[in-house]
Amino acid sequence: MTGQRLALALVHHPVIDRNREVVTTAVTNLDLHDLARTARTYGVGRLFVVTPVAEQQRLVARILGHWREGFGARYNPCRGDALSLIEVTDTVDAALDLWRKEHGGAVRPLLTGASCRDGIGFARARQMLVEIPHLLVLGTGWGLAPELFSRGWPVLDGIRGPGAYNHLPVRAAAAIMLDRLLGGDR
Amino acid sequence: MTGQRLALALVHHPVIDRNREVVTTAVTNLDLHDLARTARTYGVGRLFVVTPVAEQQRLVARILGHWREGFGARYNPCRGDALSLIEVTDTVDAALDLWRKEHGGAVRPLLTGASCRDGIGFARARQMLVEIPHLLVLGTGWGLAPELFSRGWPVLDGIRGPGAYNHLPVRAAAAIMLDRLLGGDR
Repeated sequence: MTGQRLALALVHHPVIDRNREVVTTAVTNLDLHDLARTARTYGVGRLFVVTPVAEQQRLVARILGHWREGFGARYNPCRGDALSLIEVTDTVDAALDLWRKEHGGAVRPLLTGASCRDGIGFARARQMLVEIPHLLVLGTGWGLAPELFSRGWPVLDGIRGPGAYNHLPVRAAAAIMLDRLLGGDR
Repeated sequence: MTGQRLALALVHHPVIDRNREVVTTAVTNLDLHDLARTARTYGVGRLFVVTPVAEQQRLVARILGHWREGFGARYNPCRGDALSLIEVTDTVDAALDLWRKEHGGAVRPLLTGASCRDGIGFARARQMLVEIPHLLVLGTGWGLAPELFSRGWPVLDGIRGPGAYNHLPVRAAAAIMLDRLLGGDR
């Protein structure tokens, strides 16, 4: 399945805030659940949660422990199944390294941004996924920081509706992207 | 725009829980934000929040007040813009009535369920939206209750990934449905 060749990275640093300052956002419990469940539905290989903050990394570990081994594992096993996709890393590069190791070869990052207009279209990106494993990089807050876009990595076209409103939650944007990239019956 | 002919209903009763008992779920703050932002992005006409519980209806009113007129309206006007799509009703029928009045004529409900296999395909549903305004009915909890499916209303096909895992969050499912029904550039 093509999904196994795709991993997601949910980035909490470096991202920008509403004033376009580079910040580190807090990990949101619900982001982990929603993205893991959506990723699991589409057969995605891994969900990297990127944060350099040790306390936040411990928080993620506690959440995973609850659903993978604690009370939650008995209460709702489907949740642990999805959350087992999660791996925490300090940086996007560390996520890329792990994903590369898992495939024993080259993988390519694919950045995302709501305002991207002249990036890679979804039809082309679907094809790219067949050719080489990718890491789809999603920003929290107000999106990925400029330093990531200056790396020369490919950028996926933003998702646009018919109007100018352009403020999809990352949970919704990720779901739409996975459906466009991996969904079968359109 | 076709989106204006589509409304969403997020149903908190009647829905089922994990034991398939009919229950009333609590309104989740984040559901309102996520669904409103996604609906606004795709130009959807209205988001009905269906709950018969008066205290829950007051909770929704408080959230809307904060973002439409309170501190939130100054802090993040885009949020109030999206949340202005929300209207609270006691029942699905009340939502249908309001939506019918807004269009001055017939509107059709379209139910959704993760396990629906022989329902209306998305290509056909896109066409139906052009012909007549619809109310897309989404369940919280473990999905809409059987009493709604016994009304003889049309049901949209469930969203399936490549595998058997079938537990999308309603926030993700709604985003994917709107993209399939109203998204332009596939």
